[in-house]
Amino acid sequence: MAEELVLLTFWPSAFGIRLKIALAEKGINYEYKEENLWNKSDLLLKVNPVHKKIPVLIHNGKPICESLIQVQYLDEVWHDKTPLLPSDPYQKAIARFWGDYIDKKIYEQGSQICKTKGEEQATAKKEFIDTLKVLEGELGDKTYFGGDNFGYVDIALVAFYGWFHAYEKCGDFSIEEECPKLIAWAKRCMQKDSVAKSLPDHEKIYEFLLQMKEALGFE
Amino acid sequence: MAEELVLLTFWPSAFGIRLKIALAEKGINYEYKEENLWNKSDLLLKVNPVHKKIPVLIHNGKPICESLIQVQYLDEVWHDKTPLLPSDPYQKAIARFWGDYIDKKIYEQGSQICKTKGEEQATAKKEFIDTLKVLEGELGDKTYFGGDNFGYVDIALVAFYGWFHAYEKCGDFSIEEECPKLIAWAKRCMQKDSVAKSLPDHEKIYEFLLQMKEALGFE
Repeated sequence: MAEELVLLTFWPSAFGIRLKIALAEKGINYEYKEENLWNKSDLLLKVNPVHKKIPVLIHNGKPICESLIQVQYLDEVWHDKTPLLPSDPYQKAIARFWGDYIDKKIYEQGSQICKTKGEEQATAKKEFIDTLKVLEGELGDKTYFGGDNFGYVDIALVAFYGWFHAYEKCGDFSIEEECPKLIAWAKRCMQKDSVAKSLPDHEKIYEFLLQMKEALGFE
Repeated sequence: MAEELVLLTFWPSAFGIRLKIALAEKGINYEYKEENLWNKSDLLLKVNPVHKKIPVLIHNGKPICESLIQVQYLDEVWHDKTPLLPSDPYQKAIARFWGDYIDKKIYEQGSQICKTKGEEQATAKKEFIDTLKVLEGELGDKTYFGGDNFGYVDIALVAFYGWFHAYEKCGDFSIEEECPKLIAWAKRCMQKDSVAKSLPDHEKIYEFLLQMKEALGFE
């Protein structure tokens, strides 16, 4: 049977970008469908009735939701092409732990920087940097989170790198000054085609954020 | 090498109860260590320096954190004993999706019922019941979430069943009236030794909750 794979997403979504990177790493062909989050398609409501959120991966008509579950799915189905998770159960648990850590922190904390001002924003920036420092500690002197090979945790985090510029502009701070090793890692990831071609231009993301803030009534 | 497995947890924790059930299902021997959350042990701070939370599973000296990651780890290492996750990648993604859904909703929503009053509590109850109805819909007429065999999603959810009585007492409502099929499923799970022996008495959990509310200054 010919494989039919659809990625339903919205271009600035870091969660969707994870999928673009994973699919590029594995060299899997797919159909890209852009979703309009202000006027959700019938398709989205049908394939993700629980959360009604992108990204959704549709494989031979069957939907899979939640980006890190999707990346694991791709890695299990296309297991012979560029493994993303380690095969050892302990190393796999460690990768899942850091993926989960990133999911629990980065999006929320980054958004807080953009939604707040003054003291509240200072707290948001501190929490965000604290999180990045924990990740920088885990990275240590390794090339990638899993060691020599780019993989699951790198994908989970680097998908947000396109948003770092927007966070910095909103919060008037430099992430590189605080976490130079982590930014060096992000730049290393960006040397990979799979990453460079999947991340939208960071100015475009910042412009999108400004439009969103205006639409939602944030100053 | 003799396997050395330690479960560090705190008896009322539904997250820790998941591990007790999974370990019982697989018939794995382990050492149970009770943690004092009001005076965290050096061991806990050492094995989970990031979140400083129980449960922690320590396998041959190596810590694994986050309960659903731990259950997946047990299932991968002891793969020949009572599989908990399906082997098919799509069915596995579906199980992970529902495990994640339970993690995102049940604890927070249940706690909200216990921490609030009046209109705020009415909202918390509605949200909690809405979540359970989604889960009841997913269960449908199946014996367990995965079909005929008790597994990952059952473990993720039934670990909270011991807390349902406390939520009902705090919120003055009946979960069974709202979700009879889900409660029938929970009772079916309770017929299994692995579940019945792992869940603390629900009155004891309610008493613990009352003590916590008093200690934290909730009325």
